[in-house]
Amino acid sequence: MKSNLRARFVAEFLGTAFLVAAVVGSGIMAERLSAGNVALVLLANTIATGAALVALILAFGPISGAHLNPVVSLADAMEGGLAWSLALPYIAAQIFGAVCGTIAAHAMFGLPLVSLSRHIRGGPAQFLSEFIATFGLLSVIWGCSRSRSSVVPFAVGSYITAAYWFTSSTSFANPAVSIARCLSDTFTGIRPGDVPLFVVAQFAGGIAATILFRWLVRGLPSGAKDVVVPHPSES
Amino acid sequence: MKSNLRARFVAEFLGTAFLVAAVVGSGIMAERLSAGNVALVLLANTIATGAALVALILAFGPISGAHLNPVVSLADAMEGGLAWSLALPYIAAQIFGAVCGTIAAHAMFGLPLVSLSRHIRGGPAQFLSEFIATFGLLSVIWGCSRSRSSVVPFAVGSYITAAYWFTSSTSFANPAVSIARCLSDTFTGIRPGDVPLFVVAQFAGGIAATILFRWLVRGLPSGAKDVVVPHPSES
Amino acid sequence: MKSNLRARFVAEFLGTAFLVAAVVGSGIMAERLSAGNVALVLLANTIATGAALVALILAFGPISGAHLNPVVSLADAMEGGLAWSLALPYIAAQIFGAVCGTIAAHAMFGLPLVSLSRHIRGGPAQFLSEFIATFGLLSVIWGCSRSRSSVVPFAVGSYITAAYWFTSSTSFANPAVSIARCLSDTFTGIRPGDVPLFVVAQFAGGIAATILFRWLVRGLPSGAKDVVVPHPSES
Amino acid sequence: MKSNLRARFVAEFLGTAFLVAAVVGSGIMAERLSAGNVALVLLANTIATGAALVALILAFGPISGAHLNPVVSLADAMEGGLAWSLALPYIAAQIFGAVCGTIAAHAMFGLPLVSLSRHIRGGPAQFLSEFIATFGLLSVIWGCSRSRSSVVPFAVGSYITAAYWFTSSTSFANPAVSIARCLSDTFTGIRPGDVPLFVVAQFAGGIAATILFRWLVRGLPSGAKDVVVPHPSES
Repeated sequence: MKSNLRARFVAEFLGTAFLVAAVVGSGIMAERLSAGNVALVLLANTIATGAALVALILAFGPISGAHLNPVVSLADAMEGGLAWSLALPYIAAQIFGAVCGTIAAHAMFGLPLVSLSRHIRGGPAQFLSEFIATFGLLSVIWGCSRSRSSVVPFAVGSYITAAYWFTSSTSFANPAVSIARCLSDTFTGIRPGDVPLFVVAQFAGGIAATILFRWLVRGLPSGAKDVVVPHPSES
Repeated sequence: MKSNLRARFVAEFLGTAFLVAAVVGSGIMAERLSAGNVALVLLANTIATGAALVALILAFGPISGAHLNPVVSLADAMEGGLAWSLALPYIAAQIFGAVCGTIAAHAMFGLPLVSLSRHIRGGPAQFLSEFIATFGLLSVIWGCSRSRSSVVPFAVGSYITAAYWFTSSTSFANPAVSIARCLSDTFTGIRPGDVPLFVVAQFAGGIAATILFRWLVRGLPSGAKDVVVPHPSES
Repeated sequence: MKSNLRARFVAEFLGTAFLVAAVVGSGIMAERLSAGNVALVLLANTIATGAALVALILAFGPISGAHLNPVVSLADAMEGGLAWSLALPYIAAQIFGAVCGTIAAHAMFGLPLVSLSRHIRGGPAQFLSEFIATFGLLSVIWGCSRSRSSVVPFAVGSYITAAYWFTSSTSFANPAVSIARCLSDTFTGIRPGDVPLFVVAQFAGGIAATILFRWLVRGLPSGAKDVVVPHPSES
Repeated sequence: MKSNLRARFVAEFLGTAFLVAAVVGSGIMAERLSAGNVALVLLANTIATGAALVALILAFGPISGAHLNPVVSLADAMEGGLAWSLALPYIAAQIFGAVCGTIAAHAMFGLPLVSLSRHIRGGPAQFLSEFIATFGLLSVIWGCSRSRSSVVPFAVGSYITAAYWFTSSTSFANPAVSIARCLSDTFTGIRPGDVPLFVVAQFAGGIAATILFRWLVRGLPSGAKDVVVPHPSES
């Protein structure tokens, strides 16, 4: 019904807002406290982001699926999980939420509500990083969600915790978050002009993983849970 | 029965005491060891607090619900979970436990048992931080507790781990803890005069989230568990 | 049967050996790498210990219960879980394992296999710390084990992660581990003469918590799982 | 059927590639940011690796078992879980994936795709470390997988998090990863000539644990789950 749909949009809005507030806010706090040690800043930023993802997906998953990411909504629509007619409003809610998250983070730290980032992020290495980061994110989601969906929050939180460190771009892996981060001239910012290529790489990586996993998990029993060292019958 | 009620009050007392001991004690330990690097102090403080919350909610949840927080007890009473007649004794037990937690932390580190904090925390940015921090905490609790209550300990521990970093106030998000922390002139202390506004912001944020989620999860099946990418029937 | 018992003793031996190797070994590694920043040493030590506990209790729990701690075995015997006739062999296996763990850690780092610690740890603040640390540990175990035993590994790992920081003694909370750590003149060592009081405090704290929880969880249904915000019927 | 087998090989390839990319990539990122503090580098490397393992085993477990490690595949074949005819292709997929993981990490950080490591790792202490590290890894896997297989991802992630710190070799514990890391002259590299002894120690440790656990869990009911303080009937 109508009110149910509204609840889902609000959940995507609120969840993405809190996600971005966590990303941007923890970057500000960490930079203020760490006396110039960038490893320590990224470590705090990582822990805050990974933990936020666990909490937010647990909380908003039952309401809207807790996509919090346009690539996830698109991929879910491709696979028939999300009605195509809802994909656009989902993505709009995420982008709107993400921008509000940046504004909230700035407000909580007494900064101007919006400031365009001058943090240059580009080049083929970072483009590849975003492709791989989002390819991995969607792989993790599709790998878990069909057979053991209750672990998705932990899998996604853990994956992003790792990906912050193993990609040169620190794994934005999320177009809504990328857009919102260009509005923050702080540690986690990205120069507005660098956003489009990040977004292209993210959609490309996410779609590639979705297509691969369409084939990869075809033979999986949909109800197979609690399987860790499974041994499917061999032909 | 009577003894059952006493057990619940003792659980709230003990759980909140351990929570505050973890917050205040880890702050003392971290400040002693970290040679002035505040990011490292907050990182240790964060990890100790988040981990303590997971352990304590797992342990005391089955006895009293492990509210450990007057805002949670009030919100639970608003939603019919906790009898109104129990809200006040719950909150009293939490405040009493919190104060004992500060005293225990001081005793464990050989400090005077009570010392009024001179740590100034105030201003609109911190007020907003506490509002948002507690709004998020109750959102996470209500988002999880109806459909997948067994994950609440992990969701709350993760949320506070993130919130320590993404708010300028380091997310007290708990009136009992705020009161207890004004009795400690150490890293995690708060000047007594700054407590009232923190408490107001916390109750306001918690009540706002409770009212929002009353509407947000109305349509959720109460028994829907293990759902991560759910697709409620659309009208 | 006989062989089943042997398996349980081997599990307690092996589990405690790995636990102590993790504690002592990570302390050695961290001190070597951290250029004198003690907060960083304790942080690495904490993460290694907490993570080891999760893995070891998950792995050895199904075989022996994964007590890995004489206080836990005594408490379990008090509550009728462990036959009294097995308490002593359990404790012997734990102490023997713990000592082997120290030796293994030293061997892995190319140090003399045994070296008496000169690390002074004593005084009433540390005695109180060990009492509270072990009181909390047993509270967490009893709080979880009756109603949601599958979460004990995570609860114990999280609790010790926190307790390393919120007690001035860094929460040994384990007589077997205490004995083994006096054989290592490294970061995590303890002067042999300081061990007895630590052990006394640990047993006192553990027994106190066991007696308290005997009363506290009396009214709990033994099969109540997945309960986080439960509301027992009130009289 | 044929396509199912191909999916399993792809899963092993992809999972191991991401694992090695996480190990090598996070080492590069951490070394760049940490201003020479090696403890901080290893801490970031640890957190990224442990988190990656959790995510990857959750995601690829349902498809291929997520061995991601030739020792695990060999051990699983020994125990009848993996057909012997599949052991070699599994291992080949893992090694191929691991090498691609190193290349991907280098590409993401704009480094030459392959560079032979000059990082000397050898001697009896490191040989023993690898034996113990892999003995522990397989102990954890066998301890969990028979009775509570759904926790394996968390147990393995936690175990490696600890083992990075408690062994002098930082716990490679994986022949495919060892081979791939000799192709990276960065923080996590290993001199090619040092790989063979590492691999020997890893297989020796893994086989020893597998044989021990064959006896240790013989009497365990295969369906016993959610048991943490179990008390098998005594004779």
